[in-house]
Amino acid sequence: MTPVSLEKVASVRRDVEPPLSVSEFEAAIRAVGPERYHDLHPFHHLLHGGKLNKGQVQAWALNRYCYQSAVPRKDAAFISRIHDRELRREWLHRVLDHDGHPPEEVGGIERWLILTDGLGLDRDYVISRRGALAATVFAVESYVTFVREQPLVVACASSLTELFAPKIHKERISGMLEGYDFIDDKVLAYFKRRLTQAPRDSEFALQYVLKNAKTRDEQEACVEAVRFKCNVLWVQLDALYNAYVAGNIPPGTFRPEV
Amino acid sequence: MTPVSLEKVASVRRDVEPPLSVSEFEAAIRAVGPERYHDLHPFHHLLHGGKLNKGQVQAWALNRYCYQSAVPRKDAAFISRIHDRELRREWLHRVLDHDGHPPEEVGGIERWLILTDGLGLDRDYVISRRGALAATVFAVESYVTFVREQPLVVACASSLTELFAPKIHKERISGMLEGYDFIDDKVLAYFKRRLTQAPRDSEFALQYVLKNAKTRDEQEACVEAVRFKCNVLWVQLDALYNAYVAGNIPPGTFRPEV
Repeated sequence: MTPVSLEKVASVRRDVEPPLSVSEFEAAIRAVGPERYHDLHPFHHLLHGGKLNKGQVQAWALNRYCYQSAVPRKDAAFISRIHDRELRREWLHRVLDHDGHPPEEVGGIERWLILTDGLGLDRDYVISRRGALAATVFAVESYVTFVREQPLVVACASSLTELFAPKIHKERISGMLEGYDFIDDKVLAYFKRRLTQAPRDSEFALQYVLKNAKTRDEQEACVEAVRFKCNVLWVQLDALYNAYVAGNIPPGTFRPEV
Repeated sequence: MTPVSLEKVASVRRDVEPPLSVSEFEAAIRAVGPERYHDLHPFHHLLHGGKLNKGQVQAWALNRYCYQSAVPRKDAAFISRIHDRELRREWLHRVLDHDGHPPEEVGGIERWLILTDGLGLDRDYVISRRGALAATVFAVESYVTFVREQPLVVACASSLTELFAPKIHKERISGMLEGYDFIDDKVLAYFKRRLTQAPRDSEFALQYVLKNAKTRDEQEACVEAVRFKCNVLWVQLDALYNAYVAGNIPPGTFRPEV
């Protein structure tokens, strides 16, 4: 019996489903936001609406630190797989944006720690991630693993939730300044900086994905990567909601002072 | 300036904290269960107490399938790192237990699918993991990654939650048979089989860990690995509770028929 040629099977499938046009593909990527982005999550409405107490905002900032601190590792994992020097150079500024441009420029992680300082959290405790929810750690580390293991264009596509970020950052700055007397302009520096960084990054990544995902299967894997990344963000808010709004704090995690 | 020798720092630290005795080390491992094992989780009390409806039990079985199906990959990741042929042979039976001993023996994953069949779930849907909670997938894949990346003895230690499993399996068999008219003896074959498999496996792994974790740091990393694994299990029940008891079902995941 002749074994089935996998290449032939794949090429037949691609014949059946031709690639989307560039504009259809872009629309499919952008359509994920209104379905799945975490600005739809109840915890965000509470956060932006000034409806949380200080302990709940601390829990959010403490957990979100895990995400922030994973980002440069995620980007380094991506760079470690790129053979094109120009693309590596382009991507490297993301690491610098988070870790700071040596010698003096403060990066996104330091700006996040200014926020957690401002909320009265001990910096070593935040950095240790000891009090973080396990669900947060699993989600963000799954993101790093995804970028390390998936095809390059799919890994790149997982960054495209940044297309949806500027709106949420703007809402957050105004909502949190209005809603909480323990938040001031200074501690929100992270979000203000991201207002200019995120659009530049997402535009570059979008063009890369639109150009390099060539088959229908690759295009679909890229759209799925955006959904995956929305899940990474959503799971973090689900875990916060369950622990600090519904009150089911898992053993061994941060408990706000009463 | 002479750079600090990292080896010297490590040896000083080991002098400061001598290794635990074997019995102290075993006690530290066993102490994690009563603090962190998922038999303490409210979702388990609901499940075993017959307090869930059929849709909620379906959600549990569907999500737990992700865990079951990750286990042989986790064990293969472990085996892939072992140079000792005898240890590889010993560990391989875990893969066979889950995937089935060829040619005819049914394994743990097939037994789990008999349970999901019995609950009226479509088998292809279950296997696709399309309806699973993202938190579940992140948690179980973090377990596979942990075993792939951590030192061998620490990776092995993460399996030791099996020390706590027989009690929960017994409770589950009796509780679920009593509590639900849609559950019969046949669909609980998975748990009955684990009653004999888990103690054999955990006893072997425990002896391996007790023997091979030699420094205090290694011992502590092993105890932490048991906590990590408890978190992998706990996060799954937190996500089920939040979605299917509190009713916050994330976009794109399984919705029971009403």
